[in-house]
Amino acid sequence: MSDAAIGVFDSGVGGLTVMRALMARLPQENLIYFGDTARVPYGVKSAATIGTYAAEITQFLLEKNVKMLIVACNTIAAVASQTVKDLSPVPVLDVLDAGARAAVAQTRSKHVGIIGTLTTINSGAYVSAIQRYDLDIRVVGQACPLFVPLVEEGWLDHPVTRLTADEYLQPLLVQGVDTLVMGCTHYPLLQPLLQEVAGSEIALVDSAQTVAEQAALMLGEANLERRAKTPPHYQYYVTDVPLRFQAIGERFLGRNLTHVSLVRW
Amino acid sequence: MSDAAIGVFDSGVGGLTVMRALMARLPQENLIYFGDTARVPYGVKSAATIGTYAAEITQFLLEKNVKMLIVACNTIAAVASQTVKDLSPVPVLDVLDAGARAAVAQTRSKHVGIIGTLTTINSGAYVSAIQRYDLDIRVVGQACPLFVPLVEEGWLDHPVTRLTADEYLQPLLVQGVDTLVMGCTHYPLLQPLLQEVAGSEIALVDSAQTVAEQAALMLGEANLERRAKTPPHYQYYVTDVPLRFQAIGERFLGRNLTHVSLVRW
Repeated sequence: MSDAAIGVFDSGVGGLTVMRALMARLPQENLIYFGDTARVPYGVKSAATIGTYAAEITQFLLEKNVKMLIVACNTIAAVASQTVKDLSPVPVLDVLDAGARAAVAQTRSKHVGIIGTLTTINSGAYVSAIQRYDLDIRVVGQACPLFVPLVEEGWLDHPVTRLTADEYLQPLLVQGVDTLVMGCTHYPLLQPLLQEVAGSEIALVDSAQTVAEQAALMLGEANLERRAKTPPHYQYYVTDVPLRFQAIGERFLGRNLTHVSLVRW
Repeated sequence: MSDAAIGVFDSGVGGLTVMRALMARLPQENLIYFGDTARVPYGVKSAATIGTYAAEITQFLLEKNVKMLIVACNTIAAVASQTVKDLSPVPVLDVLDAGARAAVAQTRSKHVGIIGTLTTINSGAYVSAIQRYDLDIRVVGQACPLFVPLVEEGWLDHPVTRLTADEYLQPLLVQGVDTLVMGCTHYPLLQPLLQEVAGSEIALVDSAQTVAEQAALMLGEANLERRAKTPPHYQYYVTDVPLRFQAIGERFLGRNLTHVSLVRW
């Protein structure tokens, strides 16, 4: 079992930032990534549709005999994490819970801002997740629907992106948050720009790091770490190979993207 | 047969601008709209995937006994119009051919610019379509991936949209085009802003109007106009009812959106 892979999934390429964090924190582990690139983006779809898609992906990865599942998509975690857990005999971690825990550990003012997709913010899932750990924390959310297309356009440090970030972040900043959770796996690519717009006194939370830390802890406790000395194997499944997939994927992953298989559903 | 509906389809809500033009030009016709809102956007997907989806939608509408099909999505028209025509025993019109014809009729300088999604522009379909009518016309294309999310965010007259339009249109304008085809059904909502950025001497082509005109002509020639005096019936099928669907849909359609049915695929 310890040689089994960790299954990581997302609606598209954004979860590759989580793959990257896992490769850094758990360099011996085999990893399987699933990106639903034919049906991306999930962030504007209904909860019912996202639940159906999440169940299909969970079944696919369980058939690959993974030892752990990581939901590397805030939108799926926000509306369908229970669906995934109900289907899975192996442990399930998700970026939303990880981001919530990190925000709770970070905030001093007990006032936390969340930025994410429309569906993630409207679900109220971050509010519930954070208040599960500390009822005194006040949470304000802001949907930022343009950030994903801006990242995919590669405008990571562009006047348009800066103006958009100004507009989205102002309502949070005027409310005095001291911690800002990047509640979408695309957003860490905007971190330098977001930090400038928000100001240096605001702590930005990247849940990819946190979920990798949780995975390491959980594998250790369950005695499930891979011990083989051979290099790990990385496999990627996608439902479509869209234009610019390789270039965009490698920007997220920070390394070459190989072993990509197309799943036709 | 003349009482049968015209089937109109798009990857999402953008094609509702074509519905609107058809309602205005052919107020007696029954219309059925299909929007693949669960799998939108198509503009960044591969041609193979778009072909599969287009075939599924075509079959669905043919089972409704439509008398004509209108591909109200430039991306589908760009990469899968032949797929639709091969499947269809009834006439097929599409917004791309309509836009190409209108541009040919419009240009004086014989220098036409096309703006559209990444897949539409990369397909080169507008170049082929325009040069089918006039080989002397020079065509330059520019992908504008941020326009669709900007329209859906409702930032129709916003500094971010203006700055983005400046950046996308400059390369076309410096090349001296006198006609600019809005090669995506979302773009007519940006027409006032695009006209300002492009300047009043540039003619903007809205293919929704043109395709409605073609449909009227073709129905007349085939003697297929609906003659019943009862009000026409409008029916909408979508594969998902995402957040803000009603509000966004009505912005495109310019009237109330009723008789919406969910198709679960």
